[in-house]
Parts: sequence; C-alpha cells; structure tokens
Amino acid sequence: MKKAELLMIPGPTPLPEAVRTVMSSPAVGHRSAEFKDVLKRVFPNLRWLFQSKNQVFLYTASGTGAMEAAMSNTLNVGERILVLVNGVFSQRWAEIAKTLGLNIETLDVPAGEFHTPEMLREYLEANQGTDYKAILLTHSETSTGVLNPIKELTAVIRQSHPDALVIADTITSLGAAEFALDNWDIDIAVSGSQKGFMLPPGLSFLGLSDRAWKAHQTCKNPGYYFNFTRYQKAQLENTTPYTPATHLILGLDIALTLMMEEGLENIVARHAQNQAMTRAGLKAMGLELFVKEDAYASPSVTSFLPPDGLTVDAVRAGLKKRFGIIIADGQKDLKGKIMRIGHLGHISEREVLATLAALEAVLNELGHSVPAGAGISAAMSVTRKAVATHA
Amino acid sequence: MKKAELLMIPGPTPLPEAVRTVMSSPAVGHRSAEFKDVLKRVFPNLRWLFQSKNQVFLYTASGTGAMEAAMSNTLNVGERILVLVNGVFSQRWAEIAKTLGLNIETLDVPAGEFHTPEMLREYLEANQGTDYKAILLTHSETSTGVLNPIKELTAVIRQSHPDALVIADTITSLGAAEFALDNWDIDIAVSGSQKGFMLPPGLSFLGLSDRAWKAHQTCKNPGYYFNFTRYQKAQLENTTPYTPATHLILGLDIALTLMMEEGLENIVARHAQNQAMTRAGLKAMGLELFVKEDAYASPSVTSFLPPDGLTVDAVRAGLKKRFGIIIADGQKDLKGKIMRIGHLGHISEREVLATLAALEAVLNELGHSVPAGAGISAAMSVTRKAVATHA
Repeated sequence: MKKAELLMIPGPTPLPEAVRTVMSSPAVGHRSAEFKDVLKRVFPNLRWLFQSKNQVFLYTASGTGAMEAAMSNTLNVGERILVLVNGVFSQRWAEIAKTLGLNIETLDVPAGEFHTPEMLREYLEANQGTDYKAILLTHSETSTGVLNPIKELTAVIRQSHPDALVIADTITSLGAAEFALDNWDIDIAVSGSQKGFMLPPGLSFLGLSDRAWKAHQTCKNPGYYFNFTRYQKAQLENTTPYTPATHLILGLDIALTLMMEEGLENIVARHAQNQAMTRAGLKAMGLELFVKEDAYASPSVTSFLPPDGLTVDAVRAGLKKRFGIIIADGQKDLKGKIMRIGHLGHISEREVLATLAALEAVLNELGHSVPAGAGISAAMSVTRKAVATHA
Repeated sequence: MKKAELLMIPGPTPLPEAVRTVMSSPAVGHRSAEFKDVLKRVFPNLRWLFQSKNQVFLYTASGTGAMEAAMSNTLNVGERILVLVNGVFSQRWAEIAKTLGLNIETLDVPAGEFHTPEMLREYLEANQGTDYKAILLTHSETSTGVLNPIKELTAVIRQSHPDALVIADTITSLGAAEFALDNWDIDIAVSGSQKGFMLPPGLSFLGLSDRAWKAHQTCKNPGYYFNFTRYQKAQLENTTPYTPATHLILGLDIALTLMMEEGLENIVARHAQNQAMTRAGLKAMGLELFVKEDAYASPSVTSFLPPDGLTVDAVRAGLKKRFGIIIADGQKDLKGKIMRIGHLGHISEREVLATLAALEAVLNELGHSVPAGAGISAAMSVTRKAVATHA
C-alpha cells in the first residue's frame, strides 16, 4: 500500500487537513482586499504567539533568512557579538555573523549540554568592559534536543550588559515551548513555518523589541529584502512590501486559528507531554537519551543513541521501510551517532505511541531485545488527562 | 455564484490544476531521497529555461530577494553601478543598491518608453573612463508593459565596458519572452515563481555567468541566506542549503515539465499571441495603449489608458464585480492613470478573449460606446493557428 509517511522529524512536521486543503487554492491577488483581510487577521495573531505588543514581521524565506535579518538589520560591520554555542544551529548564528563582517566571540559548551545562567554570569562579569552589541541565543537547539534556558540567560545578560541586544533562535520552540518576547525582555526572536506552526516550509517570522527597532534606526547597510523599515510600513497597511508566499499565508491564517483555539497553555502542555512520553518510552526500552536532564530537554525533539551493536542507519531504515515513519539522523559531527524524534506541531499522543511501538518492533527485529510493550507502557504512565487532544 | 476570480494581472497568475493538486501534498522531508529526486529533475530544467550551462539557484524568497542576491553576492560597498530606469521595477534596482551602500548612477527615460541601444552607446562612450562594476537592466518592466531590448543593450555594453556585470530582471519575461542567458552574454538574470512559471509566489531563481561567479569570489560581505557559494555546493548534491519551500518546489517540478512539453518556442509564441490579441483588441475598442511600439511591448503585460471620462477604478471595479476578472491598476505615479492586463503564465486565447469581451461590456455599461465585437474580432484576426493551445 502506498501511503504518506509519518514525519517524526524536527520539521517539516505533519500538516492539518485544513491547511493542506487551502494550499490548493486558486491563484490569489496579493494586493486584493480579500488578501488584506487575511493579513489583518494574521498579523495580530502572530503578535499573540510571540507574546509581543510590537509588530511581528512575516518573511517569505526559510528560518535562516530571518536569522540573517535579525543581525543585518541591527548590527554593523566590525561590531562585537557573543554567540552561545552548543550545537549546529547556535553555531549558525556565528556563521551568518562571519559573512556579515561582524567581530565574533563564542562561548561553547559541548553538544547535548546547555549554558547555565551561572556560567554565563561568570563569563560576562569577566568581560564586563567588552561592548557586546548583541548576544545570540538558541532556545530549542534542534540538532541536539537541548532546551536552553533563554529566559534566565537573558536576565543574566541584563545585569551586566543591559544594552546588548538579546537575539534568540526560537525556530523549533515557538508554538511548542513557553515563550514570551516582551516579558522575557528578548530583543529579537525568529521562527519558521515548518515547525510549531504546522505549515510547509517557506515562511519565517521575526518579533522584536523597541530596543531592536532603535538599533535598526542606526544600522548603516540594512539591506533591502529583509529590511525592517519596509515590513513595518507595509504591515501598517495590512500588506507586505514584496509579493509574499500567498498560499502559505492562507495556511498560516488557518494554523494560527487552530493554535488560538487550542490555547497557548494547552499547546505547551501537549508538547511537554509529547516530550515526556517520548523520553519515558525510550528509557524504558533501554535506550540512552542524549540530553540528560528532563528540565533542559526540548519539547520539540528528543535525541537518543542507538543501542550497542546497532547503527543509526539500520534503525532509521527499519522505521521507514516497515512503518513509513521517518525520524532524523544526527547532524554534522553527530551524524550516525544520535537519532532525533521530532514531536512538534501537529503531533499528539497517537503519533508518539505509534513511533515508540514501531521502534520496539524494529529494535527486536534487529536483535536488540525489548520487553513487550515497555516503551508504550512507560509513555502512557506519564500522560496527563488534562491535555488529551482527542477528548 | 461564488467562484474563483480570473487573475489577469502581471502575477500572481492562474495555476494549472496539477500544480494546485500537488500543493496540497502531505508534509515532505526536505532531505529525503524522494525530495532529492525532485530537485534532481528541477535543477537541469531550470538551466533549460534560463538557457544556461551553469547552475540556476533556487531561492525560497520573492523575486526581490533574488534581485538583492544578484548585487549582494557580487558587489562591494562603494562600488559604482549604472541602472537603466524606466519604471517602478527598474527603479527598484537603484533602491536595493542604496541599502547596500553602492555608488549609484541612473540613466532615465520616461515610463512607457525604453532605452534604445543607440542612446546607451552614446552614454557609455561619454563615460568611457567610468569603472562601472555592474550595469542593471530590466527585461519586461512590469509597471509599464515595456519590453526592454536587453540583448541589444548587453551587446552595446560589451563594446565599451566589457568587464561590467550585466544584471537583468527577467521576472516577468522568463517563460514568456525569448531569453538566453549564455548566448546573450548576460551575467545574472533573476525571476520569480508567480509569473511565467505558473506557480504561487514564494520561489525565486537566479542564473549566472562565469564572470558573475568570479565576481562573487572577491565579494567581501556576501551575506548568508542568499550566498551563491552555499547554493552552488548544495546543488551539486541535489539539495538546498536551508529548508526550502517544499510544496512550491513540488509545483515547480510539475510546472517545468508542462513548460518543457510545450517547448520554449511555443511558449514564446503563445505569449506573443496573447500580447498581439490584447493590443489589437484594445485598439479596436478605441483605447490608447501606453506602450506605443509593438516591438517593445511586453508579451506578459499590456497597459492602456482609461477612455475619456472614465476612471481606472470604475473600469477595474466593473470587471471585478460583474465578471470576476481582475486587472491591475498602475503603480506609484501611474496609479489611476493606466490599467494593466497581465497575460502571462497559464493564460491562452480563452482568457484573453474573455477579458476583452468583458471589457467591452463594462465600457458600454459605463457609457463609453464600443462597436459590438470590435475587440474580439480584432483579437481573432491576429491569432495564428500554429500556437493554438487547445488543438
């Protein structure tokens, strides 16, 4: 039987039926009154999701485009920045900064670990005199499954370097983990459509503080396509500065409505449950989790090591071939060393259980014996009725 | 009856059914073997459309993003460029250049007119000593409906300034007008998905010469998201550097196949016919064309003035309200002064006739008397059997 695969990767994530349906709409005039009505709903709903009183910019671009926009709109060639690195995506901040001619300093901890507020405090106090124009953080580090404590890290930054821009990658955390741009005093947060937003890739989002807007005012060569000023002006008229990805925006309108119906608390609780079930299930099958502490594990993606004697390739191929379930390999240095189960977006208990059950079958077939039902029993033991999604 | 509108605007353009269907596909893993197979077909097909032996880069962005990429990847702050301006989109080259810190010179002719090769030759000979790093052209100027003779203009540039990069906006000309990147010795051409490509907006394309690639090698701050080097490297492995707009690429795969089945010559002939029919029909209804010479009128979009006593708003509203046909207003200074009928992409005789017939009805209703059938008779008199699209 030919059927669609179940994507349990940290994006792209499965799509709600209503999103898929609207994606096949006839052509849309992007300057029509009807499309402006769509944007008029979408813009405030994005502010709700970012928990920000300010505009959230909507880019037709991958999340990486919004990451570059965060820096190119606020920083100038030669300015000093600090990047907290513990994986591929936090490292990307530094890579982008390099192509923009910034003066980069990194604070590194090994992949799978996280920066503690204490560690950052110590580092910043030792560098009290350094004029960091920006400090770059990563909320959910998609390459490892770490959830960095960016609320607490930002509070530490404000003590010693109150004027530094705090720029956060919230690509796999927004719509999955708790986040509040204004209350957490974050200056810029960026996200992408193929994650918690339950959309195909192609849109990215950027929320910002007044501090970031002020930095933009003195930015010398902010570029054009991602230029904050143009998006700000267009948004006031419920439009976009250039022809946007109309069909993805029709999907976004629906997805944001679904998210608002579910409510932020329930969304966060559902992802927490997905994470708890996955971690409990994997542990019960005797698998080693890559991120040790539950409190710093991402609600969006869970990484684990293959059991002794089995390869990542064999486990992934078994899940794909027999069950049509796709999980992700590690990236770069971690390729072939860890596997990653994505459980964000349009994912609830049903898909998590299917994945754990299929994994048990595959491990047994590959000769790694797992007690019958160990994974799913452990997973069910941590579910909470309050966040049941098919009630 | 509620039915989809017929978009006769210069993009977004109507979508083939097969494109619409594939846009509603389930989520797609962008690093999967299956998706790499799609890209493996798409990349050479894009080279075919650009008529280039080199890679064509595929960006998840509006066409404006690719325009910026053309400059940010090859030019450095302070370098001198010349922009040939005769409308909103050619002016956009200069606006982008400004935000990139380039040293801009423009050669202007009024909107609706075009730069003759003689005029450019004279200008360049008078500026023989000026070291233009790039000269920027616009093939089909979407805001006016002029088709600039960029093949001939490029030949002129090569005589006096052989090393200048010739960068062309082919956003509404590719897949509509004759174009050949390699043979015409153009260095960079950019296009967008919602035009001749028959797709929703969200993808853009950039073809380039060896000369442009060489300029990229010495570019100091080329940025990250649009960085040529990253796209070049990824394309060799049939992938993209960042998560691309998967669903639009599934549509692109289908649209390019449709275009190859039709053949470049037939595509160009069909658009020439759309243009000839539209111009003949409008003239026969006593309407004034904004672009006077047929040979320099775009095959993608035709602009005309409202008849004495009628406003652009009244004519457009009549077409929309009664017939669900959308035509475009003028832009910026031309807003309210001209109307634009787009006839590119998934458009053939049927839609052109419907538009002319509806326009006749609307003009009559608004009190501008048109002889019965004048427009469609004139349009039919210029059609050629050879390019019939429903044979």
